[in-house]
Amino acid sequence: MKQKLSIVKIGGNVIENQVGLEQFLLNFSKLEGLKILVHGGGKLATKLAAQLGIESQMSNGRRITDAKSLEIITMVYGGLTNKNIVAKLQALGTNALGLSGADGNTIKAHKRPIKEIDFGFVGDIDSIDSNFLDTLINTGITPVFCAISHDGKGQLLNTNADTIASEIAIGMSALFETTLYYCFEKKGVLKEVEDENSVIQHINTKTYSDLLKTKAIADGMLPKMENCFHALNNHVGKVCIGDISMLQPQTSLFTTITL
Amino acid sequence: MKQKLSIVKIGGNVIENQVGLEQFLLNFSKLEGLKILVHGGGKLATKLAAQLGIESQMSNGRRITDAKSLEIITMVYGGLTNKNIVAKLQALGTNALGLSGADGNTIKAHKRPIKEIDFGFVGDIDSIDSNFLDTLINTGITPVFCAISHDGKGQLLNTNADTIASEIAIGMSALFETTLYYCFEKKGVLKEVEDENSVIQHINTKTYSDLLKTKAIADGMLPKMENCFHALNNHVGKVCIGDISMLQPQTSLFTTITL
Repeated sequence: MKQKLSIVKIGGNVIENQVGLEQFLLNFSKLEGLKILVHGGGKLATKLAAQLGIESQMSNGRRITDAKSLEIITMVYGGLTNKNIVAKLQALGTNALGLSGADGNTIKAHKRPIKEIDFGFVGDIDSIDSNFLDTLINTGITPVFCAISHDGKGQLLNTNADTIASEIAIGMSALFETTLYYCFEKKGVLKEVEDENSVIQHINTKTYSDLLKTKAIADGMLPKMENCFHALNNHVGKVCIGDISMLQPQTSLFTTITL
Repeated sequence: MKQKLSIVKIGGNVIENQVGLEQFLLNFSKLEGLKILVHGGGKLATKLAAQLGIESQMSNGRRITDAKSLEIITMVYGGLTNKNIVAKLQALGTNALGLSGADGNTIKAHKRPIKEIDFGFVGDIDSIDSNFLDTLINTGITPVFCAISHDGKGQLLNTNADTIASEIAIGMSALFETTLYYCFEKKGVLKEVEDENSVIQHINTKTYSDLLKTKAIADGMLPKMENCFHALNNHVGKVCIGDISMLQPQTSLFTTITL
């Protein structure tokens, strides 16, 4: 029987709130078994860019990662956020090790091809080195990923943290029984966007299709849900969506998604 | 017989020069056998601090690492510099993995006690996890350290890169036959500071004591030399000091220090 492995993604909004981050890291450190953390960015990078007078480049309303923005992202996500999370987890007795996709060649990607929009230094993932991550984990290490990959030719690439989490979960599913957790500011997928407690506790392929028909799922939730089903369709056992209390054993109010 | 391990420290002045850095990384990637890289900082952090209007705090002419400076250091050395070196080494076929001392709990330190000067968030090293580094190296990984350690209680600490390199070399000497390389902008320890080619090719305890008596060694070189002899007195096999060409097999003009 395969060992269990939890892949937990924490969103930028949670990271920004110092109290929320500390509580999350406490819950994460108490989570039993083997685990991997993936953290998003948050507004710290935008704030630093503004302080340095670097304007965010947009194209058709979408953000472009130019060379300067990539430097900021590498400093903030790869440096400040990642190293502080690692140091805090060490204090909680979790032997964390921070990684970008370049470190140990863990996440290979390619620069997104230019179609209608040139997204700049944005990476689409090609492969995860699951064997090396397996070795690390079995040494007692908890890998902590920032949302940066590389192309193997010396170029770092800004990469969506939700996608990094789902691709790692998929990559590790050959070796482990995986659960993917998306931890964000809401209690789960909501039936009524205005009602924080209207959490849909179970979603599967059939009920998701019904939810889509009735347009019950909010726009911002759609790419997240696509990520979830992509993971489930590629051997990830289960996906959970909720807030930082989701990792506590006594919490039941969050969304579980299965095929 | 123990395997050979090279610990190479590259100084901030070399890192700042893009052409010099690329040449160094090429030489480093070609260096045969097991190896660890430690990189210093350079003026990028000072530049960023100035852009953000953060003034360098000084006390009796010595730099203080306050909370803001530590953030800058973590962003620049732990993020920008470290991840770019790792990505470039990957492109050269070296499976690099970037680390601060918090990552994998590799370098434990304590905040330097306040005596005449409060240096702020500066760490003095207590221990190196040589077993974990041994595991990493034997997985085919080349660790790349920035000059940051941690106290195990959640605090990152700014730490001298020369000291990190020598303490890693000392820590690894129980398991490996170690050589410590200090790579900087000069060809080696110079007999005449003004004459770039007056490299002293061999120094040992006896000749070092003579050099000290005649005051032939420049002030800035003294702490570096102290570091070298501290390493040699603690089981490091050999220390070499020179510029980026030192790592090329055909180069002979650099300084070798032994007991």
